[in-house]
Amino acid sequence: VKPPLQWGGRFTAPPDPALLAFASSLAEDLVLAPFDLRCSKAHVLALQGGDIVKAKEAQALHDALDRVAAEIGDGSFQTFAQSSGAEDVHGAIDARVRALAGETGEILHAGRSRNDQVATTLLLYCADRAVRGGRLCSEIARRLLDQAEIELERKTLLAATTHWQPAQPVLLAFWLAGAAEPFARAATRFDRSRSDAMSTCPLGSSALAGSSLPLDREGAARWLGFAGLSRNAMDAIGNRDAALDLAHACVRAVAAASRVSEELVIWCTPAFGYAHLGDAAATGSSLMPQKRNPDPLELVRAGASDLNGRFAGALGTTIGIGLSYHRDLQVTKGAVITIVERALETLEAFARALAYVEFDAARMNASADESYTVATDVADTMIKSGVTAREAHRRVGEQILAAERDGASLDWPTAAESVVGKATAGSTNPSAVAAAIAALRERLSL
Amino acid sequence: VKPPLQWGGRFTAPPDPALLAFASSLAEDLVLAPFDLRCSKAHVLALQGGDIVKAKEAQALHDALDRVAAEIGDGSFQTFAQSSGAEDVHGAIDARVRALAGETGEILHAGRSRNDQVATTLLLYCADRAVRGGRLCSEIARRLLDQAEIELERKTLLAATTHWQPAQPVLLAFWLAGAAEPFARAATRFDRSRSDAMSTCPLGSSALAGSSLPLDREGAARWLGFAGLSRNAMDAIGNRDAALDLAHACVRAVAAASRVSEELVIWCTPAFGYAHLGDAAATGSSLMPQKRNPDPLELVRAGASDLNGRFAGALGTTIGIGLSYHRDLQVTKGAVITIVERALETLEAFARALAYVEFDAARMNASADESYTVATDVADTMIKSGVTAREAHRRVGEQILAAERDGASLDWPTAAESVVGKATAGSTNPSAVAAAIAALRERLSL
Amino acid sequence: VKPPLQWGGRFTAPPDPALLAFASSLAEDLVLAPFDLRCSKAHVLALQGGDIVKAKEAQALHDALDRVAAEIGDGSFQTFAQSSGAEDVHGAIDARVRALAGETGEILHAGRSRNDQVATTLLLYCADRAVRGGRLCSEIARRLLDQAEIELERKTLLAATTHWQPAQPVLLAFWLAGAAEPFARAATRFDRSRSDAMSTCPLGSSALAGSSLPLDREGAARWLGFAGLSRNAMDAIGNRDAALDLAHACVRAVAAASRVSEELVIWCTPAFGYAHLGDAAATGSSLMPQKRNPDPLELVRAGASDLNGRFAGALGTTIGIGLSYHRDLQVTKGAVITIVERALETLEAFARALAYVEFDAARMNASADESYTVATDVADTMIKSGVTAREAHRRVGEQILAAERDGASLDWPTAAESVVGKATAGSTNPSAVAAAIAALRERLSL
Amino acid sequence: VKPPLQWGGRFTAPPDPALLAFASSLAEDLVLAPFDLRCSKAHVLALQGGDIVKAKEAQALHDALDRVAAEIGDGSFQTFAQSSGAEDVHGAIDARVRALAGETGEILHAGRSRNDQVATTLLLYCADRAVRGGRLCSEIARRLLDQAEIELERKTLLAATTHWQPAQPVLLAFWLAGAAEPFARAATRFDRSRSDAMSTCPLGSSALAGSSLPLDREGAARWLGFAGLSRNAMDAIGNRDAALDLAHACVRAVAAASRVSEELVIWCTPAFGYAHLGDAAATGSSLMPQKRNPDPLELVRAGASDLNGRFAGALGTTIGIGLSYHRDLQVTKGAVITIVERALETLEAFARALAYVEFDAARMNASADESYTVATDVADTMIKSGVTAREAHRRVGEQILAAERDGASLDWPTAAESVVGKATAGSTNPSAVAAAIAALRERLSL
Repeated sequence: VKPPLQWGGRFTAPPDPALLAFASSLAEDLVLAPFDLRCSKAHVLALQGGDIVKAKEAQALHDALDRVAAEIGDGSFQTFAQSSGAEDVHGAIDARVRALAGETGEILHAGRSRNDQVATTLLLYCADRAVRGGRLCSEIARRLLDQAEIELERKTLLAATTHWQPAQPVLLAFWLAGAAEPFARAATRFDRSRSDAMSTCPLGSSALAGSSLPLDREGAARWLGFAGLSRNAMDAIGNRDAALDLAHACVRAVAAASRVSEELVIWCTPAFGYAHLGDAAATGSSLMPQKRNPDPLELVRAGASDLNGRFAGALGTTIGIGLSYHRDLQVTKGAVITIVERALETLEAFARALAYVEFDAARMNASADESYTVATDVADTMIKSGVTAREAHRRVGEQILAAERDGASLDWPTAAESVVGKATAGSTNPSAVAAAIAALRERLSL
Repeated sequence: VKPPLQWGGRFTAPPDPALLAFASSLAEDLVLAPFDLRCSKAHVLALQGGDIVKAKEAQALHDALDRVAAEIGDGSFQTFAQSSGAEDVHGAIDARVRALAGETGEILHAGRSRNDQVATTLLLYCADRAVRGGRLCSEIARRLLDQAEIELERKTLLAATTHWQPAQPVLLAFWLAGAAEPFARAATRFDRSRSDAMSTCPLGSSALAGSSLPLDREGAARWLGFAGLSRNAMDAIGNRDAALDLAHACVRAVAAASRVSEELVIWCTPAFGYAHLGDAAATGSSLMPQKRNPDPLELVRAGASDLNGRFAGALGTTIGIGLSYHRDLQVTKGAVITIVERALETLEAFARALAYVEFDAARMNASADESYTVATDVADTMIKSGVTAREAHRRVGEQILAAERDGASLDWPTAAESVVGKATAGSTNPSAVAAAIAALRERLSL
Repeated sequence: VKPPLQWGGRFTAPPDPALLAFASSLAEDLVLAPFDLRCSKAHVLALQGGDIVKAKEAQALHDALDRVAAEIGDGSFQTFAQSSGAEDVHGAIDARVRALAGETGEILHAGRSRNDQVATTLLLYCADRAVRGGRLCSEIARRLLDQAEIELERKTLLAATTHWQPAQPVLLAFWLAGAAEPFARAATRFDRSRSDAMSTCPLGSSALAGSSLPLDREGAARWLGFAGLSRNAMDAIGNRDAALDLAHACVRAVAAASRVSEELVIWCTPAFGYAHLGDAAATGSSLMPQKRNPDPLELVRAGASDLNGRFAGALGTTIGIGLSYHRDLQVTKGAVITIVERALETLEAFARALAYVEFDAARMNASADESYTVATDVADTMIKSGVTAREAHRRVGEQILAAERDGASLDWPTAAESVVGKATAGSTNPSAVAAAIAALRERLSL
Repeated sequence: VKPPLQWGGRFTAPPDPALLAFASSLAEDLVLAPFDLRCSKAHVLALQGGDIVKAKEAQALHDALDRVAAEIGDGSFQTFAQSSGAEDVHGAIDARVRALAGETGEILHAGRSRNDQVATTLLLYCADRAVRGGRLCSEIARRLLDQAEIELERKTLLAATTHWQPAQPVLLAFWLAGAAEPFARAATRFDRSRSDAMSTCPLGSSALAGSSLPLDREGAARWLGFAGLSRNAMDAIGNRDAALDLAHACVRAVAAASRVSEELVIWCTPAFGYAHLGDAAATGSSLMPQKRNPDPLELVRAGASDLNGRFAGALGTTIGIGLSYHRDLQVTKGAVITIVERALETLEAFARALAYVEFDAARMNASADESYTVATDVADTMIKSGVTAREAHRRVGEQILAAERDGASLDWPTAAESVVGKATAGSTNPSAVAAAIAALRERLSL
């Protein structure tokens, strides 16, 4: 296969095939194909708006691009691309357009560099994935709130821990509503990411200096849905900020899921017995017949660590390079795409796995009254009666020490009493929990 | 020294001093002292608002806290803290308040856990640093724009590169204005970071369940300047999202500076000779008498890589831990503080170093006409006359190949002509550059 | 497709297909297929040695495994695996063996868990790749030394830089031989990695406790080429140290290549003009006809940053998990494989790209005498005559300052004289360079 | 304070104090002081061996350096250094030597650059710390083996988990011996690190080209304990491989500790109740009087994540810079020192915390017989009688399913029987555990 390169007039030797293969990004960027098509159609508008192509040529280009879109839909473009020897998806689309539109196809790249084409395409992709990420996070938050409402109704108690040591009794609903909060913040990160990606359109920046052809940048940007135009062509083609911001948003969302996952993994142990992951989500062992492992949750947890490192890698590729385009940015692009795709898969799997989690209310309720979880309430009662905080703390600590030593039991409030006794907004008091659920729902609906 | 621990009633053995020293975060968190004071004063308001302390006690606490503030100002608190054996700055302040206010000091911690205290204090710190970071980035952007205006006036040309190979002629002003753009985005990240940090106040969340004392959370939050109250106490004390968002904003700002730095380091080589770093900013060699090295720029570049990794470390400490407080979060806190402080120092140094950069307009202007930088303009002219983009590219490439082979020179436009010939918004055309500078200035002033 | 799960007797619901797909590692671990086959054949030996399978059954299993090997060779196994719905390559091979060997195939997994199977297979893979990595690094080093010998013969000079500022004249051969050194260290890391991977065989560790079947671990390990047996089954199945050590070795080797690449990228600029990357390795621009960009070197540079982050991700997946097997380790495995494969591709491309680098001796020689590079030699001469080092440094610095101010030239030694005047082992003196080349060659041949 | 710079003759403006402060590495590298002294003394030998200084001058320099050593011992040098305005510890020592030795002190830097000085000093530091790291890891391994022997005697059982789900019964001794294994590997990494650091001495490499002074490199290297001389001066001063290898060894050792820590954190929960961290190592809460938290273990866990990221940062500073010295390497140096110091502190704290862990044998023994942990043994018995592995797995799974459904109990072997029934080397069978302990002890004593 002779690779369909978009350059070569100055070259006296053909490219080394091994180096060309090494430099290809098709494996990662094929997912950009639909976004390149939109970008290419917008460029046709820009060419037409600048009178650089005539209506008839423009139509031929649009037709060819529509045809490629159809081929993407039926998978035939992907097959073509992989066997084309193209350097990337953009080259493959260019080659396909030329095959479909003949000499007219050779006009498409007028006034356009792969630099502004890649930058624009990547932003369109980012905006699309940011919307998906935001929706997924909102959905996860809502599912947790749905479950919280059920458990609020049931008044299920829980010995909440800090440092994994029993801390205070709370409602399971409180835990669930708390678990939902980070996903609201994660959704905000995605929303900003989308809006940043669509803020300024790089198309028409050409290689880095703008173009001497009178491209209708404004029209193209409007058609694509951007809020405005990039102000500086060099910055427009050399910066990957929106892509990195999205990758960061992705990593953070999965990091949030990793914390819930870890807690559920431990809750699913027989020792805790608080939760159970349904058979459809659990995995067995090839050797140990009794096993039922919470694999999806473990994969979410590990996925966060992996993505965290990959993000450092992606950002690292942009550090210490000059301001304009360097081929390093192809690695950035591939890394971002890999992060984003895996993160969205992970969030989807997490949302799905959550649906299989069943809580054991009896075990949880029983635990809530163990391990002196109401000690703080006892101390607070002393404080209300005028003892200093420090002194109350000391006295209660000594009561526990003595009780442990003597095997005595303490006549202390129940976990249920502790929970209803909480007096502050944001606390585990049932009405505070109900209010918090309502408030978070409202925020999610914005 | 007997360490001023804020717990111990249940304990039968004193802490192992080596483990206590290992666990101390004073070295990193002393910088939080003024923010803890504000947090503590707000907590006094919350206690007073809930009628848990009387006006007289509240006044005594305020007085003690003011006294500590003064001691922070004169440095004596820091000396005290470091020799106190306290686990962290919060414990040191608590100890100092008790020393100053006697038994009244023992009230201060009523209804408060170190969990909500740390969470709140850290947010106040983050908001403060986010403001500084945003200002620094705006300042850097403005300095670059100031310089861009000077160079626009001078019409200094530059052979802009991609892949470090000469690409097209641009105005140095265009490069400078382009270099300013990422700092505007960096400033936006800081702005959001500030607003996120101040969105919901965790104070009054107590350990993780809220408090049974009727704390006036609303009053405290208002006094501190928060927009609202945290909705869920467990999330409030266990999440470090705002701190990590700020750390991320910091890393990204320094990453932006690293790209400018790399370019200037190379421009300062005699081979390029485009720029010169003044003696006050350059560094010599202990061995080679002729040396004048661009060390501050190299340190900025390396700082970005270092901070990138540290951020992965900071985020990593929060992955796979349960939802509430775990001591791991102390490491997160230390890492974030270290990142933020170093990033701000780096941005300050970068801003300062920029002021010592002198450009060699003669060298730059000369370079702009070398290396066939106007080839794209030549091809564009063909395109305007109806040749397809691909064909024009081929022809111009072959012209260069022939010229190189024959040692002939090509009758092509000058770099200056190329620049004024650019026709698109965002291009290096002088009027486009002027417009872009004005537009970015406006954005920075928002 | 009903997925060929290796478990299920205790399960009442079939797995959620979306979660099963999420959990699959086939995309990454298919490359392990030949190593699993060797591992499986060794397990047959262990079963036979323990009299758990008879000779006839063992032969049937070996035949089936050989058949799978053939199918891997012709690619049909890969097609089967991808459509099988198997969780990983191990499950796919198990399914294929059962399809080929019928009920006998069901014996294969006796006394074996996927835990010890994965651990062993991964070590075999690591050992194989470590050998390749070591060879590649040695080859790169030798190529640089070959080139060094050519340039030593030519006596090509170079103004070596520190901080990218001219420092001292050296031989290009000295630079090339210096560039080779890190690859010798990288090769050592690979060698250790291979030897560590093959030090103790985990096969027969079963799930984590060993087996109650009398497996012939010794025989299996010997057949596979391991030096010994793992001492503790739990550690054997839960540790990924050898894999992470290999991944680390990979990242470091590419990091070494990134430094050479950066230097060559800059040397290829017209401003420096020291080097030229042949047309077969350079890449053009789709817009700018004159461009010839050093893309492979940029991709190596960025690859190092990307792999650095990915390694942090891989290691991160193992931090804070318990000692035995957790599904997190599947992510570790996938990450390590991805790192290793990409690193080897990158080193191969780097080796290949080096062959296309041509040096411009005239430009280099000319540069060597510019920029006061012999200042240190002048100072050294003063020192030899009794001036203190500090004073000599001061005087020479002032000479330069005066010469620059007055535009005067200094009657100083030439670069060529400087180079031959070096008196220490390891210096750029031609005979020292020759000795260093010989010494490094010897080390590489060990 | 006028900073004691080691350069300046060519400079017309004094350094900007803010930039000088930014560039200072004293805060991190003061710990190198004793190693710089050894390096400096070796350089005096090299000068003397090359007849560049006379015996009397050499003696004066040695005396001054000994004096500085004494001042380091009593802390007065550190005070001097911090107020000196020196750029780094090397400059501070140079300044102090000149203050002590007068003009003779000005000879010390003859033929030496800070480049080879820093490279050599850092290697000496690395070798020292590698020895400490290796000893700590061996000590941790031995402590775990000591405990393993005690528990082997006691025959304490444990329901070992994979995926945190009960897997098979093992001896606690088996778990402890397994936990020791990674520290043996970690010790090997440190040993190699030490030997690599001391393999080739960079001293006498001067700035990057070697020296024209006839320095006795051989004598200096021998005196310092290096095995040989660096072969190439440029590589010698520009590579940080040994430092990064040590940092990597450090991170991996702490990562090993993080896994043990996580497991113990969970075992310390009342739900598991397997372990208890003594009061001297546990930490209380400032609010909740009953709390006893396993903070040191959490800090070890988080420390691993933090150090993992920092290592990526350290390595990142070396990626994409040229081959010789760049100021970026100062950041590398600071990062490595910070990693190494914190890692050693962490390993020390971990070793110390381990000593406070008490196991609850009764709880562990009871757990071992729960949750169908012997299911694999039951299946293995079937396999021995001729049932295929797959079929046995299926049948046992169904037995459990039925038993769970019917609430019936299964007449299965006990955990104790399971353990002694294990037949393979490396298994949890008591004699296999005893053999493994002995074998690991032997390895540790090498």
